[in-house]
Amino acid sequence: MAFLTNEKLVIVGAGGMIGSNMVQSVLMLGLTPNICLYDIYEPGVHGVYDEMCHCAFPGANISYTVDPAEAFTGAKYIISSGGAPRKEGMTREDLLKGNCKIAAEFGENIKKYCPDVKHVVVIFNPADVTALTALIHSGLKPNQLTSLAALDSTRLQQQLAQEFGVRQDKVTNAYTYGGHGEQMAVFASKALIDGKPLSELPLTDERWAEIKHMTTQGGSNIIKLRGRSSFQSPAYQAVKMIEGAMGGEPFKWPAGCYVNAYGFKNVMMAMPTVIDKDGVHFTQPEGTAEEMAALQASYEHLQKMRDEIISLDIIPAVDDWKSENPNL
Amino acid sequence: MAFLTNEKLVIVGAGGMIGSNMVQSVLMLGLTPNICLYDIYEPGVHGVYDEMCHCAFPGANISYTVDPAEAFTGAKYIISSGGAPRKEGMTREDLLKGNCKIAAEFGENIKKYCPDVKHVVVIFNPADVTALTALIHSGLKPNQLTSLAALDSTRLQQQLAQEFGVRQDKVTNAYTYGGHGEQMAVFASKALIDGKPLSELPLTDERWAEIKHMTTQGGSNIIKLRGRSSFQSPAYQAVKMIEGAMGGEPFKWPAGCYVNAYGFKNVMMAMPTVIDKDGVHFTQPEGTAEEMAALQASYEHLQKMRDEIISLDIIPAVDDWKSENPNL
Repeated sequence: MAFLTNEKLVIVGAGGMIGSNMVQSVLMLGLTPNICLYDIYEPGVHGVYDEMCHCAFPGANISYTVDPAEAFTGAKYIISSGGAPRKEGMTREDLLKGNCKIAAEFGENIKKYCPDVKHVVVIFNPADVTALTALIHSGLKPNQLTSLAALDSTRLQQQLAQEFGVRQDKVTNAYTYGGHGEQMAVFASKALIDGKPLSELPLTDERWAEIKHMTTQGGSNIIKLRGRSSFQSPAYQAVKMIEGAMGGEPFKWPAGCYVNAYGFKNVMMAMPTVIDKDGVHFTQPEGTAEEMAALQASYEHLQKMRDEIISLDIIPAVDDWKSENPNL
Repeated sequence: MAFLTNEKLVIVGAGGMIGSNMVQSVLMLGLTPNICLYDIYEPGVHGVYDEMCHCAFPGANISYTVDPAEAFTGAKYIISSGGAPRKEGMTREDLLKGNCKIAAEFGENIKKYCPDVKHVVVIFNPADVTALTALIHSGLKPNQLTSLAALDSTRLQQQLAQEFGVRQDKVTNAYTYGGHGEQMAVFASKALIDGKPLSELPLTDERWAEIKHMTTQGGSNIIKLRGRSSFQSPAYQAVKMIEGAMGGEPFKWPAGCYVNAYGFKNVMMAMPTVIDKDGVHFTQPEGTAEEMAALQASYEHLQKMRDEIISLDIIPAVDDWKSENPNL
């Protein structure tokens, strides 16, 4: 089959539910035949490798390793789902600290083994700060590293489509920016439902509040229904992000990116973005005063999380970032 | 996006690991936008539906239901992974009986709600007899119903590629026919390794026995490595089978099909097959005397399993099949 590129893609955390889905998705979408599956747990990644061999993708050249040098050397694209999940008894800070340390090491590996990597997508939680941590330690340019943010917007799209009984892709111009979960900023003032402005359609404040609530709870609702965290949708969206960076269909859902503009400073957050072969491009969100205030609140929350990992010594103080990464 | 067809596809068992992967695979490959997710367990299938919505596939028209009438009515294509897994304490006969009863009901639902279905793929174990049971009860023509058999052959391909250090798709003409697991018949006498006949390459009897052993253990090895049954590879191969039946890329790995020719009578078994828009076509396996003897043994084992479900009253005696299904 014809592939979009022949350059090496590394899937970090390939033994997990998200990582293994990403490998399959990359091969089904024909992005590249040269995929390295990397994980710290050998049996898991070995099993995923075997399953991919049993798929017998024509032209595929798949390898797996638990050695970061082997994984990252020569990599041109990387998607990392290689964080640890939150476990029983872990505090939020435990998770933050643990995964940001993993992200720092991930960034160091990029700097050491593949400084010529073209694009990196980070999707392990909390993605805004793990991605920021990886960016600082990697030495990459800000447009070369993005984090997964699309699911909040696609969940909003789903909720609005259900509310008005239209096919999901008939809902346009409805997005969320800033952070995730409770901290997202919903921008729906320009939303169109099958071409009609949402503002002109009947929607009570109560229903709108419920739609926003269902959107923020989209991830935890999957856990309730499936008995496990969502894995198919983050895997698919992350692969579509890297497809954009490889020069395929540009990725137009919001992505988390490094922002130092429009009054926002030194954070990674979801913005109106396009990912294409030149990396990620962002523009200023436009919305009502209420929407902009929600984005400001979301930004302030992200600043607090950033300052928390500075105080944990996982990343340097903002003024010292340039010594780690001259591109910032 | 452009889809191969707009006709309705039903995924039975869509809430499970295999079923949910099939839904995603169908949408990623662009087979049809009209997919109905059917399962008996509402929260699971609801969660999969939500995850698919979060993928936001352009043009997709996905629905889910726990009602067989809603699921099957209007269906033109069906893939069923809707069997029960083997659980602690279940005997092999418990599994056989339980899943063949599910297959009988599945066939009755086809006859009742979608007699005009074009093609059906059955993948729950033991697939040779669940598929046979479904075929008898559905009233479909033999070329309209197939069972998953490709994984044994792709596992053989992987083993031979590893043995000789070639890219997997450079191994050709190596297949397994008949039944599965310990009962498969390996046909490798015409195999080519990067164009060279396997018979002319150095391979001791011991190594060849090991390769065959690894091939038969391919599925149980995934359980050891991943801690769960394979789900990505069966899902992918089943979707590629239905893609062939929809008129897309013809499916050329062996499929299980109803055979009443070449000395084999009234069984479903893996044969040299092609699935295309006219359904499944099979030809006679050609091999050495040893290979043909292995196939005969495999066939006899399948006859025994068939006679076992006749004695359990799940399907009628062979002579009475025509009253259930005039196409047999």
